[in-house]
Amino acid sequence: MRLLFIGDIVGKPGREIVKHSVGKLREEHSLDLIIANAENSAGGSGLTPAIYKELVKAGVDAITLGDHVYRRKEIYTVLEREENIVRPANLPEEAAGRTWTTVTAADGTIVGICCLLGQLFMKPIDTPWRTADRVLAAMPSDVKVRFVDFHVEATSEAQIMGRYLDGRVSAVLGTHTHVPTADECILPGGTAFQCDVGMTGPHESIIGRRIDRVVETTLTSNPTPFDVATDDVRLNGTIVDIDVETGLAIAIERLCYREEKP
Amino acid sequence: MRLLFIGDIVGKPGREIVKHSVGKLREEHSLDLIIANAENSAGGSGLTPAIYKELVKAGVDAITLGDHVYRRKEIYTVLEREENIVRPANLPEEAAGRTWTTVTAADGTIVGICCLLGQLFMKPIDTPWRTADRVLAAMPSDVKVRFVDFHVEATSEAQIMGRYLDGRVSAVLGTHTHVPTADECILPGGTAFQCDVGMTGPHESIIGRRIDRVVETTLTSNPTPFDVATDDVRLNGTIVDIDVETGLAIAIERLCYREEKP
Amino acid sequence: MRLLFIGDIVGKPGREIVKHSVGKLREEHSLDLIIANAENSAGGSGLTPAIYKELVKAGVDAITLGDHVYRRKEIYTVLEREENIVRPANLPEEAAGRTWTTVTAADGTIVGICCLLGQLFMKPIDTPWRTADRVLAAMPSDVKVRFVDFHVEATSEAQIMGRYLDGRVSAVLGTHTHVPTADECILPGGTAFQCDVGMTGPHESIIGRRIDRVVETTLTSNPTPFDVATDDVRLNGTIVDIDVETGLAIAIERLCYREEKP
Amino acid sequence: MRLLFIGDIVGKPGREIVKHSVGKLREEHSLDLIIANAENSAGGSGLTPAIYKELVKAGVDAITLGDHVYRRKEIYTVLEREENIVRPANLPEEAAGRTWTTVTAADGTIVGICCLLGQLFMKPIDTPWRTADRVLAAMPSDVKVRFVDFHVEATSEAQIMGRYLDGRVSAVLGTHTHVPTADECILPGGTAFQCDVGMTGPHESIIGRRIDRVVETTLTSNPTPFDVATDDVRLNGTIVDIDVETGLAIAIERLCYREEKP
Ligand SMILES: [Fe+2]
Ligand SMILES: [Fe+2]
Ligand SMILES: [Fe+2]
Ligand SMILES: [Fe+2]
Ligand SMILES: [Fe+2]
Ligand SMILES: [Fe+2]
Ligand SMILES: [Fe+2]
Ligand SMILES: [Fe+2]
Repeated sequence: MRLLFIGDIVGKPGREIVKHSVGKLREEHSLDLIIANAENSAGGSGLTPAIYKELVKAGVDAITLGDHVYRRKEIYTVLEREENIVRPANLPEEAAGRTWTTVTAADGTIVGICCLLGQLFMKPIDTPWRTADRVLAAMPSDVKVRFVDFHVEATSEAQIMGRYLDGRVSAVLGTHTHVPTADECILPGGTAFQCDVGMTGPHESIIGRRIDRVVETTLTSNPTPFDVATDDVRLNGTIVDIDVETGLAIAIERLCYREEKP
Repeated sequence: MRLLFIGDIVGKPGREIVKHSVGKLREEHSLDLIIANAENSAGGSGLTPAIYKELVKAGVDAITLGDHVYRRKEIYTVLEREENIVRPANLPEEAAGRTWTTVTAADGTIVGICCLLGQLFMKPIDTPWRTADRVLAAMPSDVKVRFVDFHVEATSEAQIMGRYLDGRVSAVLGTHTHVPTADECILPGGTAFQCDVGMTGPHESIIGRRIDRVVETTLTSNPTPFDVATDDVRLNGTIVDIDVETGLAIAIERLCYREEKP
Repeated sequence: MRLLFIGDIVGKPGREIVKHSVGKLREEHSLDLIIANAENSAGGSGLTPAIYKELVKAGVDAITLGDHVYRRKEIYTVLEREENIVRPANLPEEAAGRTWTTVTAADGTIVGICCLLGQLFMKPIDTPWRTADRVLAAMPSDVKVRFVDFHVEATSEAQIMGRYLDGRVSAVLGTHTHVPTADECILPGGTAFQCDVGMTGPHESIIGRRIDRVVETTLTSNPTPFDVATDDVRLNGTIVDIDVETGLAIAIERLCYREEKP
Repeated sequence: MRLLFIGDIVGKPGREIVKHSVGKLREEHSLDLIIANAENSAGGSGLTPAIYKELVKAGVDAITLGDHVYRRKEIYTVLEREENIVRPANLPEEAAGRTWTTVTAADGTIVGICCLLGQLFMKPIDTPWRTADRVLAAMPSDVKVRFVDFHVEATSEAQIMGRYLDGRVSAVLGTHTHVPTADECILPGGTAFQCDVGMTGPHESIIGRRIDRVVETTLTSNPTPFDVATDDVRLNGTIVDIDVETGLAIAIERLCYREEKP
């Protein structure tokens, strides 16, 4: 089976390109499943119930999140009720939302999905390593295809997770830095890996935000509103082919989709 | 003119692939200048006078450094004496080494070179922004071709530097994360940009170090020696074509060179 | 002459105890000058023009700030216009507000005042060391009494500043951690020093904020509004006696003032 | 019963003052138990078997550690074998050493002891909160007197732990910043609390290290060996009186002991 993982959707420009492209991409690339990280989809930070619906209606099959998971508290009911959305599994047990889920791909494959937060250069968070062990142990053993979004700042930590889970999951794909890395590969044990798949949103920007604002504040310390930018919108993601018998990856390819100018 | 910038050379494996490939790459790609970041070339951390000579003899024309600049104190004399090596410019004024230099490329172009350290998630360091202004002002105004190695952890900060110097330098290429990013581009003002060009060394590793050691220490907190790894050695770098009249970039391309197995 | 430095005023409880006590403390302790750090005085973060006036009217002679300096943009006009308030001097040159000032104490002594931000565990900021040199060089040389508020997280960095300025200023007193340290002393060169003078506000709190809210969010990751707490209000500060001829400190004493319960 | 907790013993000067004073302090203050944090006792970093023996022989009844716990690997056997020494409990399960222990005080009281690392501004580490719950649940329920060393950088995190454990343990005393805080108190639930008890070692220093070296490296980036300093040696600690029936604190008092000059 073949899945596409779409990196951090940023604001309205990110949502718009997802809406315009997902159907087309599904067909063109014969995708069985589309997963997206939506942690920045609401105005650049967090997710709302309306946007959740919008993304699902657009054809996104499952949603992962990151450090901005609770920026919009209205998302709580969605996190508790809906079955195709997960919160970072290594947040405290009491945190709202499920730590893993399964969804059924177009080809009938049941796919286990979870996301985890990195520790390095990020807010204090529990061990992603032992949490990964626990989450994988909790998934039904006949769920062979398993997808991990590792939301992480440091490349070293991303690589450690890839190696730690190599052979145990189908893919460990990173998010959070908003820049795709050119290191997509299949690790020796059969796990597809990439430090970061990049973001989906305006690239004439500083990781999605208006350049003028970010530069001014950085240079002068004068605070400015870091509005989501508007131009050079791209969808960044990664396509992984998986052997449904073994759950191991067969191929991995970066995808960068840009709207054609009329 | 065309230059190749080689990302962080890690340990002996990194040095070996540089020695084997630089001549070949120069010819094959018609390179006029080869710059390399050598901050990890001595056993994974720092640089020694012997290794400096080794790299220059191999055909590296100029050397930049990063946060590990002073790990080997023997390098001081080289930093003070040699003209084709720079230390991060935003270290304190008193720090050993020059903050910028010029070298003459094979085609006769004089190229200004500097490196800067990022502030985010790194050790305390002075403003890279105002330091960049100062360094660029200090370079002779007829030096049109100007190269900046921005040694930086956070993608946001790398992008801010790209935008801040866009149109003022030929290239802002990042180092330090040891993973190449797939975002190489020419910014609107004509500056070649990439968040990170990746590392030169063993890729069957955690950013250059032995996987088993790093994973064990991460999982258990038991300290282990983080020796430089040995396998899957690659040279990562980026080639930039520059208009010598304007100093602006014409083309940018990622390069990943692997030794052929005999 | 004798000055009192009041640590971070937090919210309305902090302002109230300042208003009630400053007159009394001035008399009781024969204070010639009262300086206060007001970075948290507006709802726990930042400062407004109205609160600035309130504090000055209460008897505060001069105001320093910290990392929250620009949380309330309305303060800009005050920062530009008023002469008894300084912003952290190692913010970029372009940042609003003066980097140092002088005020006249009740005994006629002219006192130079500045504040600086630490680098460790704080947002990227320029060198406090060289900035301190510049600010001290800019003050008129006949201003012998010089006060430095060092707004800093790490004890090591606070101590380095104390030693760096020892003998060059009358006092280096820390703020930012909101907890007074029991290390007040006069350094060998004659500078009064303390890592942190503590905060002025509700102490039945987590550094000024409601305990229940902070504990809940820490334990569960569920976001809660970190309102300023209300109980056990104290004014923390430090009194320094200074020889006006030499500008060196003669004595240093911690002060903790609590409202009496009726 | 009455216990003394001695803050981070730094190097030989720290060990010497412990050896000279512990017997005297025990008698003078009628101490039933002496606990010490020894994470910096070997040359400023870590602990060795020989120093462990030296401290125990000097009269230290139990030892806690911090982030430098494994700097000297020779300590492993001591950590595994000896019953009066604990490693930070929120290190990974696989880490060497016990997560809690009990020792018998001079008055016959059995005292439960553990230490925990903070997360803020420190290396990635598991939850101190849930680990505290687990450790306290593991201690025999008839052990009423319970001591927690919270090795932590940020005052906010120290206060959260105090509040989280208030009424559940006898004392939460902090270490790691090497500077005593003037906030010792008994919290509403009966737990003795202080953000940091300070260090035991040379105070003519930067948190125990030679001033000239630390200042030079900070100012110039030139690396220097941060040797342990030598002068103004003090023992910093805190004395807590505990009701052995309830396990709650009755009194808390800071102690600063200096060698008398002959
Ligand atoms: Fe994120
Ligand atoms: Fe994101
Ligand atoms: Fe580096
Ligand atoms: Fe490096
Ligand atoms: Fe602050
Ligand atoms: Fe504050
Ligand atoms: Fe420590
Ligand atoms: Fe320590």
